[in-house]
Amino acid sequence: MKFSLIPREFRFFDLFDRQADCALKASAYFKELVHLGRFDDETVQRMREIEHEGDDITHEIINKLNKTFITPFDREDIHLLAHELDSVIDLIHTICNQMRLYRLSVVNQHMMQFSDIIDNAVTVLVRAVKGLRDYKEPDNILEDCIEVNRLENSGDQLRDFVISKLFDEATDPIHLIKWKEVFQGAEMVLDKCEDVANIVETILVKQA
Amino acid sequence: MKFSLIPREFRFFDLFDRQADCALKASAYFKELVHLGRFDDETVQRMREIEHEGDDITHEIINKLNKTFITPFDREDIHLLAHELDSVIDLIHTICNQMRLYRLSVVNQHMMQFSDIIDNAVTVLVRAVKGLRDYKEPDNILEDCIEVNRLENSGDQLRDFVISKLFDEATDPIHLIKWKEVFQGAEMVLDKCEDVANIVETILVKQA
Amino acid sequence: MKFSLIPREFRFFDLFDRQADCALKASAYFKELVHLGRFDDETVQRMREIEHEGDDITHEIINKLNKTFITPFDREDIHLLAHELDSVIDLIHTICNQMRLYRLSVVNQHMMQFSDIIDNAVTVLVRAVKGLRDYKEPDNILEDCIEVNRLENSGDQLRDFVISKLFDEATDPIHLIKWKEVFQGAEMVLDKCEDVANIVETILVKQA
Repeated sequence: MKFSLIPREFRFFDLFDRQADCALKASAYFKELVHLGRFDDETVQRMREIEHEGDDITHEIINKLNKTFITPFDREDIHLLAHELDSVIDLIHTICNQMRLYRLSVVNQHMMQFSDIIDNAVTVLVRAVKGLRDYKEPDNILEDCIEVNRLENSGDQLRDFVISKLFDEATDPIHLIKWKEVFQGAEMVLDKCEDVANIVETILVKQA
Repeated sequence: MKFSLIPREFRFFDLFDRQADCALKASAYFKELVHLGRFDDETVQRMREIEHEGDDITHEIINKLNKTFITPFDREDIHLLAHELDSVIDLIHTICNQMRLYRLSVVNQHMMQFSDIIDNAVTVLVRAVKGLRDYKEPDNILEDCIEVNRLENSGDQLRDFVISKLFDEATDPIHLIKWKEVFQGAEMVLDKCEDVANIVETILVKQA
Repeated sequence: MKFSLIPREFRFFDLFDRQADCALKASAYFKELVHLGRFDDETVQRMREIEHEGDDITHEIINKLNKTFITPFDREDIHLLAHELDSVIDLIHTICNQMRLYRLSVVNQHMMQFSDIIDNAVTVLVRAVKGLRDYKEPDNILEDCIEVNRLENSGDQLRDFVISKLFDEATDPIHLIKWKEVFQGAEMVLDKCEDVANIVETILVKQA
């Protein structure tokens, strides 16, 4: 039996697994909706349910944290990890809601690229978060964190390209306002993924 | 005499009471200005004074906190509570300032609804914050926190309705830019109220 | 030999000096570019290199912090100071990038005023941060923090003046969207400088 500093009764890892799965559900569904170009009451309602599920898990983690004296990693890191992972889901929901309100139910090639990058980033991130349960392969986790950073950089470039194109080709200011906001929102999801990857890295460094 | 874990010499509760009163003054005055449709140099100057008063109290709390070894609740919770409650006031001031700069001194029905929801949320929130002084009725405080969450949800719905209407009826992009920003600002005040309610809940859970 | 509570082996001060110098390099270069009205691929690439340099130093501080048990000031203050000082550089880079994407390579009088205020604020801030190494003159550091606050206030007024002018004279909504964003970004740099000054003040108060 492997010696572990982390008492088995702590259910944090189970909760983080559930939250990570919820983030993956959100990014996969977002990708699906973008590829369908379908942001209506029904699909955004479904995304809202995923977001509420994420809120509930976050609430459970924070509550457990506040009642627990010993935790697997530093208390503030757990708090931050739960909060920031939840924000990834919130931001994905926000984009979907905006696309509904702005009536952007169309297939947009650049939004498709964004949704692919986001889904990749969340997939890698979820693997890193789940990897925290078991430090046997910290190098793999660190590599995942670096990959999330790389994906965030490619998101920056995509946003710059798209925003610059929007302004260069702008004829209708309201069209520009709508798309500028949702593309900037998409890039913010990747920023948040990078924030989560940085927290994972912090946890690893402290345990080293 | 009731036993208390909290030494009487700590003046944090007095300071939080003053900060809570300041937030209430801001939300009540905001509601008044919205109902009058009057955002000019004089009224915004008055709101700025309320905001400065809030800044001073926050500064006093943080300074006292940094010089104190024992505090009624966790140090970081006090810091966060002071900071976030101050942000409620700051955000209300920001909306007023924008409405002045954008020359939106008109009576707007939807902004009236927002100012009512904000004033309700701040009133409930202030009751919850003041309740922290005395844990005799934690259930009442928790109910207040839930009520703030409910009000934030109704603010989300109102913002969605208003933003969607703005875009559907948009003919003048500059008109849209102005109102979109102030309505989103109004919803951010409610988000911040919810953040404060969550901190209050955290403090309660830790004391349980 | 002066007695010091802070063991000499801690290299935090050296790292903060390097980060402070990097912030100064960013604000000076920003001022230069604004005065030249030159935001193209080459100059923004140079600014990005400065930003990456800042990221690397921040990463080094955080890593060292996570591996160190004793630190000159509170762990969370170091973390926050490193993070927020880095944000000053990031926000300066963001404005430059936007001015490139929005093709705002022109000499703008108000942006010149902003870049002067920002460069002044960063210069004073850097002196305050470097002063932390040696508490012999805490009053000088506090005065610098107050000066940063004063500069932030003058930035608020400048932003209000410029935004109000933009709306009053607006004929082209897309022109307004671009300039509104970069001016608000410039004011956010000063907000961030104020945040850093507040952290410096917190560190001083705790040491008193």
